[in-house]
Amino acid sequence: MTKRYSKELTRLKEMVLRMGGLTEKMTHQAVRALVERKGEILAEVREMEQQVNQLHIDIDEIALELIALRQPAATDLRFITAAMKINTDLERIGDQAINIIDKTESLLSVPLVKPLIDIPRMADIAEEMLKAALDAFVQGDDDLAYRTIERDDAVDQLKDQVFRELLTFMMSDASTISRSMDLILVSRHLERIADHATNICEKVIFMVKGKDVRHIGHLA
Amino acid sequence: MTKRYSKELTRLKEMVLRMGGLTEKMTHQAVRALVERKGEILAEVREMEQQVNQLHIDIDEIALELIALRQPAATDLRFITAAMKINTDLERIGDQAINIIDKTESLLSVPLVKPLIDIPRMADIAEEMLKAALDAFVQGDDDLAYRTIERDDAVDQLKDQVFRELLTFMMSDASTISRSMDLILVSRHLERIADHATNICEKVIFMVKGKDVRHIGHLA
Repeated sequence: MTKRYSKELTRLKEMVLRMGGLTEKMTHQAVRALVERKGEILAEVREMEQQVNQLHIDIDEIALELIALRQPAATDLRFITAAMKINTDLERIGDQAINIIDKTESLLSVPLVKPLIDIPRMADIAEEMLKAALDAFVQGDDDLAYRTIERDDAVDQLKDQVFRELLTFMMSDASTISRSMDLILVSRHLERIADHATNICEKVIFMVKGKDVRHIGHLA
Repeated sequence: MTKRYSKELTRLKEMVLRMGGLTEKMTHQAVRALVERKGEILAEVREMEQQVNQLHIDIDEIALELIALRQPAATDLRFITAAMKINTDLERIGDQAINIIDKTESLLSVPLVKPLIDIPRMADIAEEMLKAALDAFVQGDDDLAYRTIERDDAVDQLKDQVFRELLTFMMSDASTISRSMDLILVSRHLERIADHATNICEKVIFMVKGKDVRHIGHLA
């Protein structure tokens, strides 16, 4: 491998990491704006999305160039296509953070239905999963990827819990329906962020093992 | 291009089309089960998902092999990577159809809140978009892809309409909350199917023009 080629691969890895860091921060700040009722954070998250969108385009471009010009062998090719697929998941995580921001905007104009406990917990787990997924990618650590996938169930359980609890609120007091709906949707956006972290882990496992773990149950 | 290589590319295209046809049918049957209250259709949709999941794995495998062994030039490389990305969108469309099936299952055990009009209309547009997106892919028709992307707004408007209408039902009669919530979620799953069709169109445009239309507004 030439020095220049190896530098290009490192650069691709760094761009994916930078994008991952941004989407992690977007998620964190979006939920913080909601929980701490800080509307001033919203613009900051929207600004980060611009950067994420630019990286989304750049990463695909560089990956395609690398494939076309360097004709990478099996391992590198798996790394580069993993980077392209992780790129898609990260962009969607950014979209989900923006969806949370949109709901937060309308939620900040009305009193909260209840103090938020499960939603910040969901956000914590989703962020940790995303961080671990990116670590697993950088270190080519499929064990870490497997362990991270297992955490997805906890997020799903919290989402169901949020749903049941808010349904009770809506049924006992119709004036909370609109606000409750918004919170339910926030919890679904967080669930999807955790799903994307899971997707990233699956791609890491494929990259490391050349084995497709999608659709065969997570602990196969 | 050798005859065998060209055959492999054709095979990849056919597999994407087969997967696309299956996800289109899954969407159609999932909504039909809901609207016509036909529980017996549900198993059929779940069965199709198995096939979609298998194709999802096979398409990526074949695409990677083609890149590794044939070292395709620019145009073919764009086609193969487009196929890999479209593959991801199609698999997610299958997931969304299954989500609709899950909601339908619980909705079939209770009376409908109201006759369904907007939801089947959303499904019709989403299916047409998906069909057109796949046609655009096969024919390399970026005009068709652009025109299809424009239809996404109609789906978003219907989703908002469904939301507002069901919110009114929920507020005036708390006994409809749970059923209304399920219908709102069905409309969101359909919206996401249309989003994935839009994603596919963007990939077709990139494939044809080598131009990235994501993040710069659809009619740029």
